[in-house]
Amino acid sequence: MLFLKCTWKAKFKKLSLVISKIYCMKISSNFDSGKIQLVKAESPNDIQLIIPNDDLSEHFQWFYYRVSEVRDLSLRMRIMNAGKVSYPEGYENYHALASYDRETWFRVPTCFDGEELTIKHTPEFNVVYYAYFAPYTYEQHLNLVHKAQMSPECKISILGSTIQGRDIEMLTIGENSPEKKKIWLIARQHPGESMAEWFMQGAISRLIDENDPVSRMLLEKAVFYVVPNMNIDGSIAGNLRVNTKGVNYNREWADPSIENCPEVFYVRNKMDELGCDMNLDIHGDEALPYNFISGIEGIPSFDEKLKNLTETFINSWKISSPDFQDEHGYAKNNPGEANLAICSKHIGERFKCLSLTIEMPFKDNDNLPDFEFGWSAQRSILFGASVLHPILQVVDDL
Amino acid sequence: MLFLKCTWKAKFKKLSLVISKIYCMKISSNFDSGKIQLVKAESPNDIQLIIPNDDLSEHFQWFYYRVSEVRDLSLRMRIMNAGKVSYPEGYENYHALASYDRETWFRVPTCFDGEELTIKHTPEFNVVYYAYFAPYTYEQHLNLVHKAQMSPECKISILGSTIQGRDIEMLTIGENSPEKKKIWLIARQHPGESMAEWFMQGAISRLIDENDPVSRMLLEKAVFYVVPNMNIDGSIAGNLRVNTKGVNYNREWADPSIENCPEVFYVRNKMDELGCDMNLDIHGDEALPYNFISGIEGIPSFDEKLKNLTETFINSWKISSPDFQDEHGYAKNNPGEANLAICSKHIGERFKCLSLTIEMPFKDNDNLPDFEFGWSAQRSILFGASVLHPILQVVDDL
Amino acid sequence: MLFLKCTWKAKFKKLSLVISKIYCMKISSNFDSGKIQLVKAESPNDIQLIIPNDDLSEHFQWFYYRVSEVRDLSLRMRIMNAGKVSYPEGYENYHALASYDRETWFRVPTCFDGEELTIKHTPEFNVVYYAYFAPYTYEQHLNLVHKAQMSPECKISILGSTIQGRDIEMLTIGENSPEKKKIWLIARQHPGESMAEWFMQGAISRLIDENDPVSRMLLEKAVFYVVPNMNIDGSIAGNLRVNTKGVNYNREWADPSIENCPEVFYVRNKMDELGCDMNLDIHGDEALPYNFISGIEGIPSFDEKLKNLTETFINSWKISSPDFQDEHGYAKNNPGEANLAICSKHIGERFKCLSLTIEMPFKDNDNLPDFEFGWSAQRSILFGASVLHPILQVVDDL
Amino acid sequence: MLFLKCTWKAKFKKLSLVISKIYCMKISSNFDSGKIQLVKAESPNDIQLIIPNDDLSEHFQWFYYRVSEVRDLSLRMRIMNAGKVSYPEGYENYHALASYDRETWFRVPTCFDGEELTIKHTPEFNVVYYAYFAPYTYEQHLNLVHKAQMSPECKISILGSTIQGRDIEMLTIGENSPEKKKIWLIARQHPGESMAEWFMQGAISRLIDENDPVSRMLLEKAVFYVVPNMNIDGSIAGNLRVNTKGVNYNREWADPSIENCPEVFYVRNKMDELGCDMNLDIHGDEALPYNFISGIEGIPSFDEKLKNLTETFINSWKISSPDFQDEHGYAKNNPGEANLAICSKHIGERFKCLSLTIEMPFKDNDNLPDFEFGWSAQRSILFGASVLHPILQVVDDL
Repeated sequence: MLFLKCTWKAKFKKLSLVISKIYCMKISSNFDSGKIQLVKAESPNDIQLIIPNDDLSEHFQWFYYRVSEVRDLSLRMRIMNAGKVSYPEGYENYHALASYDRETWFRVPTCFDGEELTIKHTPEFNVVYYAYFAPYTYEQHLNLVHKAQMSPECKISILGSTIQGRDIEMLTIGENSPEKKKIWLIARQHPGESMAEWFMQGAISRLIDENDPVSRMLLEKAVFYVVPNMNIDGSIAGNLRVNTKGVNYNREWADPSIENCPEVFYVRNKMDELGCDMNLDIHGDEALPYNFISGIEGIPSFDEKLKNLTETFINSWKISSPDFQDEHGYAKNNPGEANLAICSKHIGERFKCLSLTIEMPFKDNDNLPDFEFGWSAQRSILFGASVLHPILQVVDDL
Repeated sequence: MLFLKCTWKAKFKKLSLVISKIYCMKISSNFDSGKIQLVKAESPNDIQLIIPNDDLSEHFQWFYYRVSEVRDLSLRMRIMNAGKVSYPEGYENYHALASYDRETWFRVPTCFDGEELTIKHTPEFNVVYYAYFAPYTYEQHLNLVHKAQMSPECKISILGSTIQGRDIEMLTIGENSPEKKKIWLIARQHPGESMAEWFMQGAISRLIDENDPVSRMLLEKAVFYVVPNMNIDGSIAGNLRVNTKGVNYNREWADPSIENCPEVFYVRNKMDELGCDMNLDIHGDEALPYNFISGIEGIPSFDEKLKNLTETFINSWKISSPDFQDEHGYAKNNPGEANLAICSKHIGERFKCLSLTIEMPFKDNDNLPDFEFGWSAQRSILFGASVLHPILQVVDDL
Repeated sequence: MLFLKCTWKAKFKKLSLVISKIYCMKISSNFDSGKIQLVKAESPNDIQLIIPNDDLSEHFQWFYYRVSEVRDLSLRMRIMNAGKVSYPEGYENYHALASYDRETWFRVPTCFDGEELTIKHTPEFNVVYYAYFAPYTYEQHLNLVHKAQMSPECKISILGSTIQGRDIEMLTIGENSPEKKKIWLIARQHPGESMAEWFMQGAISRLIDENDPVSRMLLEKAVFYVVPNMNIDGSIAGNLRVNTKGVNYNREWADPSIENCPEVFYVRNKMDELGCDMNLDIHGDEALPYNFISGIEGIPSFDEKLKNLTETFINSWKISSPDFQDEHGYAKNNPGEANLAICSKHIGERFKCLSLTIEMPFKDNDNLPDFEFGWSAQRSILFGASVLHPILQVVDDL
Repeated sequence: MLFLKCTWKAKFKKLSLVISKIYCMKISSNFDSGKIQLVKAESPNDIQLIIPNDDLSEHFQWFYYRVSEVRDLSLRMRIMNAGKVSYPEGYENYHALASYDRETWFRVPTCFDGEELTIKHTPEFNVVYYAYFAPYTYEQHLNLVHKAQMSPECKISILGSTIQGRDIEMLTIGENSPEKKKIWLIARQHPGESMAEWFMQGAISRLIDENDPVSRMLLEKAVFYVVPNMNIDGSIAGNLRVNTKGVNYNREWADPSIENCPEVFYVRNKMDELGCDMNLDIHGDEALPYNFISGIEGIPSFDEKLKNLTETFINSWKISSPDFQDEHGYAKNNPGEANLAICSKHIGERFKCLSLTIEMPFKDNDNLPDFEFGWSAQRSILFGASVLHPILQVVDDL
């Protein structure tokens, strides 16, 4: 957190004095991944908020804030600039998440009229968090990589430093050896897509489970290079899509600079050094209520082999997880029309290998809807664990 | 974290290029409570470090850093300015803490020659943390207060905002009612004394345990107002004694300003509003290898009643925890010579009540030494739980 | 379990056919510690039960049974011979325990008219257990001693075999050495007093906690010999007071026979071999809603030293646990009138040492009542942990 | 446990007196699933044991016993009648299991010369268990079904009583409705095949996991009737293949009697009542070091549909778990030659449905060997969870 985040007290002192006589309500966001700005809060049923822009960027959509002194108050919170967010369709049929204990995140009634997003909730406890999705903080990230380190199969390496000077961790899972396939898993180029790191937690935990036959068979055939968070600075800052310099990493793979996107620079170099036989880049999609992949049909090198691998991967995953599907998703690129600045396309072309973008919903999987929790941290973890099945089905042919 | 922390890569690029050919070692501290600066690291056995000053302050002593790519390397790390820290005697017979998993912190060989503090360690894993004491981060703090909130006995309130705009939480444990005694527990005015918040975790967890007879009896007689971290900004910044404006909170109780020490300002006001029959202020002491209290013998209002309460408290605690003693400690103030700007003295005088500073060691309790872990997070938790015994012995007479 | 326990189906086949057309209700007790006999169960609100006698004994009072296929049925269960149990006053103001998950035991509405004990309950799940107190099974016992074994401070020894051929375990906690005090903790001579083994779990767990200063100080001064279950056969059989030969162990200490009470025989011999400076024998009391001790005022050797030790023990425990008191309890023996066949009296006399019977309630501690759970497994565990405080206060003077 | 199990003390008193002067070694098996008999134990390196017969049966092979007072002793234990067990080939390349804490079971050096099975081990703790496979006791069984009951998807029913009067539990998982497929999972007809109940634990836990998409999709299409232990009496007795009357349940499905095999009688009746679209019967195989299924090729009704279902099931399972394979297994029955007294064959024919025997190894899966643990409880749990994948692939076509 690089600067003072807006809080009701700090930014609206005058107002706060007035309101505090009646309500002690307080809204804050000065914590890891926090993001909101208060406009007005004259009463619990007229709380007006705006989402600030991502750092040095036009993007904004992620929100995460804490409301205090509100037990049993009937809250009506309006995000006034919701119609202008990066993906307004992401707020259609969307329900915001709330938590009292910072562990269980449940959905609360939310509606969007095209301009404002209105969240209505009467908290049962005095302090409550609201967020666009269950956050995954830097502390959770550090705990993830250090718990993984305790496995004899796993080693942490540091690829370099982020713009703000944090370590960029890569996990090596499995024994490196020339004949093994090199499989890369990276996540959270877009920091607001926190489900991508929950997914990584599921995949990593399963890979180091010494009883799991899928993991054991995979580690006989492959070594995994895993970057659980490609944009730590942006994650802490509460950005949706960019780092603290306003750079969208998933448009920088053609010619990454160490100054503007060190994570992309270091990872691409490391891929060149270690090799890459498969690459999965994990994301969240604001709009579509489904899990899906986006492939590399549009890259110059796309051929029968890559087509078959893609199909096998899709079909195997559909079999192993009903949370995966391929009916809904992005339109495929026409041949040769892929944007090679995008990670999956660039790496697919660079290494002539299977390279996929994986997308999870912010909303729910409409094929298996859960009205209480929607798509969740827990489901993302299980989905991340399930990806090892399709990898195992293609690993010999990579 | 308000600015880019020093990292080897960021600050010593030239050097890094040279070293990285041989070693990939990396030292970083850009994380919650992190604090170190690299001087030179030409080889694993010649790592030279300095501890930067607390924000806008002459104080420094807390360190917390991460060393990477060092599995099986024989590290020799020298803190070059150790002789000039706030409490050099704190480094005599002191052993630094290390952790691979961010949960278990063990002691490693450390020696101090009056000028340099030398830590020698051959890590078994590739990435390792070293710290002055087991850290207690802001995320842990937020988890603590939110888990506590789930108890029917506990409510979070927000007293105001820190200088950097974070919420200042107070827990109310027990039902408020006029006839109940008002007991205040506050901790971590000095942010580097992280054992103080581990202590709070122990005390809070026990107070909300519905099976514990000590807690149940206490909550029949008293209500607790608990501020688990009086200096959140300073804690995150990795300061030893001050907030981000360089202010030592424990010298500000006579006339606290909202601008320079909002926590003290809000807490003292809240004490005025709610009343105070007893006050415990939790600290760590750099030098003494013992747990002890510092009393209020020097305040003008000190009388027979306060003397008796102090003695009962001391004797009860000695009985309930062999980790407490009263042989070693600070010299008592002469009558009337107490510094009333210090929390325990000021509140003792302001409310004519029992008000004590509790001190835990950074080193160990030499009456029950533990060569592997020294004084630890776990022992601080148990010590915090044990404080309910002496409170119960004095509560009726407060 | 030595024989077929009564079950509704097995013993009342005719009846079962009739009832099963309407209700599928089934009552069974053929499991560890199970005890009940069905008389009649024509409808959910007319279930008539009797408690069978302890093996070869006039005693009976413990019950533990399972009722199946009863979700949302309003059950009225009458124990028809409740007026003739060993301690009818134990059913006054008593509330039976129920559990759906075999872990959480809650109290249900129960009343006693001097002849019948009536339990009324409408289960929320299809299968429910009812018991006189939260059971502690042989499997739990084995898990307890084997988890304890993993501590470097603890060793399991086998003193001999029970009548039914099970191992009699003794734990040695701490390093044996001549200068250390020998402290014995034994429990559950009366098998139906399951709280005694929950107490042991609390005491053992705390003794092996390497962070606990009370335990560490105690193990510097003493070695503990712990027999967590003195009557394993009787516990499994669901007896209240005797082993499977009908023998009440707590009347056999003067001249124990290997044939009829091998546990007493072996333990007394081991005490002779290893020495005994203190002995605590853990029990439950059916009638009194309090925790208390019964002392050795009536033994010939009772003197000023033992009087002082007893008083220090009592006063220290009152201070450390509000669940302990000494207002309510058994009348003290007149000098010389103690029954030396009782464990605490016999051992007190045999070794001229502090030797106490500890009693916990089946009902509740009326000084700190809990209407939902009453006295419970969890509270017994904490109470067992708290006994280390008074032991520490007397250990030097034993 | 119906009678006094052999223990060294009880059965060999004379010998015990001699040995106890030198060693205090004690061997016992009087606990749930315990089975051994001591022949001679003159020294740690000459312990001679025999496995008693199953109740009223020629079968024997399961062993489970506890050895005490043996820390740091070099044990050599010979099972003298190993050459005459039910499946001597089961001891070839087999390694016995040991545990200190009753939770972690590891393999110890074992060899078989065709006559004797010799186990060599130097225990690190004073009391150690040895077993043919990680046991699954009646208490664990009861905990399993009662934890499952707490799920809103799961209901316990009692089908009847075992010969010894214990409840026979069936779990119904999912909402019953006419259009849903009825899927039966039963396990442990052969009580010594404890891995079958570990498998059930995995399958049940996953089925009630509300976040698991495979389970949620399955419960939309099917209801599960689960009998986790078909032979509770035999399990407690430590039998390999029969109940306490000597009856091998898996030869009784053609005409089960309530007197001799009540579990089979009640389950077959319940299948008639509720229907059966699929049936999986879980077993362990002594000899083959692989997981496999045994199908119903030999039943009269076997047709193209059943053939396709079987193949789909096999192929799907191979994809979802590398611990499953179909190279190794039993020879398929010729058409019409199936033994219709066997569960899977009988139910397949009775309901013209897919009905399979699932076999797991006592030894290891030689395709993914684990030298430390072999095939284990943990791997059986994961394997049980994995079976939901092939079920989902066939459910629509059942």
